[in-house]
Amino acid sequence: MRINVKEAAEMLRTHDNIIILVHSNPDGDTLGCGYALLRALRKAGKKAEVMRPLNTGKKYNYLFDDLGKQDFEPEFVVSVDVADIKLLDTDVREQYGNRINLAIDHHPSNCVECKNLLLEDTAAAACEIIYKLLLELGTELDKKIADCLYTGISTDTGCFRYSNTSAQTYRFAADLVEKGADGAYINRIMFDTKTKSYVILERLVMDTLEMHFGGRCAMTHLTLDMYEKSGSDESETDPLASKTRQIEGVDIGIFVREKTDGTFKISLRTLEPVDASKICGMLGGGGHARAAGCQVEGTLAEVKAKIISAITEYLGQ
Amino acid sequence: MRINVKEAAEMLRTHDNIIILVHSNPDGDTLGCGYALLRALRKAGKKAEVMRPLNTGKKYNYLFDDLGKQDFEPEFVVSVDVADIKLLDTDVREQYGNRINLAIDHHPSNCVECKNLLLEDTAAAACEIIYKLLLELGTELDKKIADCLYTGISTDTGCFRYSNTSAQTYRFAADLVEKGADGAYINRIMFDTKTKSYVILERLVMDTLEMHFGGRCAMTHLTLDMYEKSGSDESETDPLASKTRQIEGVDIGIFVREKTDGTFKISLRTLEPVDASKICGMLGGGGHARAAGCQVEGTLAEVKAKIISAITEYLGQ
Repeated sequence: MRINVKEAAEMLRTHDNIIILVHSNPDGDTLGCGYALLRALRKAGKKAEVMRPLNTGKKYNYLFDDLGKQDFEPEFVVSVDVADIKLLDTDVREQYGNRINLAIDHHPSNCVECKNLLLEDTAAAACEIIYKLLLELGTELDKKIADCLYTGISTDTGCFRYSNTSAQTYRFAADLVEKGADGAYINRIMFDTKTKSYVILERLVMDTLEMHFGGRCAMTHLTLDMYEKSGSDESETDPLASKTRQIEGVDIGIFVREKTDGTFKISLRTLEPVDASKICGMLGGGGHARAAGCQVEGTLAEVKAKIISAITEYLGQ
Repeated sequence: MRINVKEAAEMLRTHDNIIILVHSNPDGDTLGCGYALLRALRKAGKKAEVMRPLNTGKKYNYLFDDLGKQDFEPEFVVSVDVADIKLLDTDVREQYGNRINLAIDHHPSNCVECKNLLLEDTAAAACEIIYKLLLELGTELDKKIADCLYTGISTDTGCFRYSNTSAQTYRFAADLVEKGADGAYINRIMFDTKTKSYVILERLVMDTLEMHFGGRCAMTHLTLDMYEKSGSDESETDPLASKTRQIEGVDIGIFVREKTDGTFKISLRTLEPVDASKICGMLGGGGHARAAGCQVEGTLAEVKAKIISAITEYLGQ
């Protein structure tokens, strides 16, 4: 059943011993939601715990490093920023996946089976919804809660860069900064810090830069040996996909990454009007208009030839 | 004489034929101020012109590309975001430097000799002051004015990343987005677009990465031959200075750049509590606590040795 912020607040007010679920490979938004809500609930005298995934990045420590553990018999389960129970860690999914009382989310694709769904898909970050919820609950916002909520808002908007950033996003950020959120610190940790291994990996990848279609298409690749040379690994490859599209004049950026199983993952990033999902669709993949991907088999040269020929076909249409 | 926003608005209301001065090597804030003000004045039926510097980057075209030229005998001169008349283009300084009626700025160091000074040094961007001024003037904000003001606010805060970003900054951004400012477009142009020559230059510079002091200090250098190899030039070197400081664990980032006169420019970027200005001061330079610079003579190896030894001395104190 779809419910609104007021109803969700009432539900939290009348329950205790609350388990909060965040998605696997957690990002700033799901963790920001989880710990802002946990802090608000504990402030209200309730017991609450976030089921924190094992692979939570160290950079998020400040969201929870002052919190103790609470043991209790779970009575009420809330998921935050989880679009699908497949996105929960396996053990969490098995334990709580079929007993979610309240799902709070901003993904239009949300398909969590739950008793109550608070979904606002115009929110740039799920933390915007949690902020409204805490206002409704009458929570006194402290610096720590403000840091949590700011983290979600900033990370899910690429530091206010993406087109999902709305007037509401900026207004909430203003409120949170007034409540003590340390935007400069959070943004430095989230957007302005790279590991040395990543810096070396990026250099190796950028060394492979090649241009196609008269400069409107740029391509780089990553081979497994680069992990060894840089000390990096797959977990650090995410930002590499968008590097080629950032080059002036490029509206099709391609990043080809060798996987440990010998296949290649192609990531496409485009500018309007090039539809990345259509191009990747030709190779059995999919995604969004501006960002899509596909898995391709073959040698590196064959894989590159396949994507170039898919783009040739797309552009010729 | 220091005046406030209300007084500045009254002054503009009672004058016509207004020349607006922006600083040389113009950035998004000075140009955003200039064209927002020009548009507001023209909307009020006045004649106004910005003295646009010759070396204005092409990426700023959207701020003024719809505007025609107006010829008139200048009666009132306003400078925006200009801290010192030395920062004006030479011909503009000669023509208008000693007849500035109103200086609008946010630099605490402002030393423009002018009849009236509207200075708010808590504003992250001078565009925040211009926004207040236009509200006071009763200007109806359209999309173009909103784009101009948003550009200044976003660029002077590093897209809301720096510690100068205040609650006011976010609130003004919210208002401007509501008035039609295209934040996603502006931020892509300002923060997410690199020339191919810059991408190649960055790669060449990052190839020179060396670590010192157990990983807390990272250094790169740029030599003149890299301009030839990359097709880039001095105008693109600004972002390179902060690349080393971004590496995890690094609190002293050094960038050594060879200049055409054979000397080297050292740029230092630090994290608290390392004082970059003290270190550069030892070599005859200066700046701020987190960002400072100095000019050093010698071979590349000698210059590097000098800065490393200055840091050794600083850290030993």
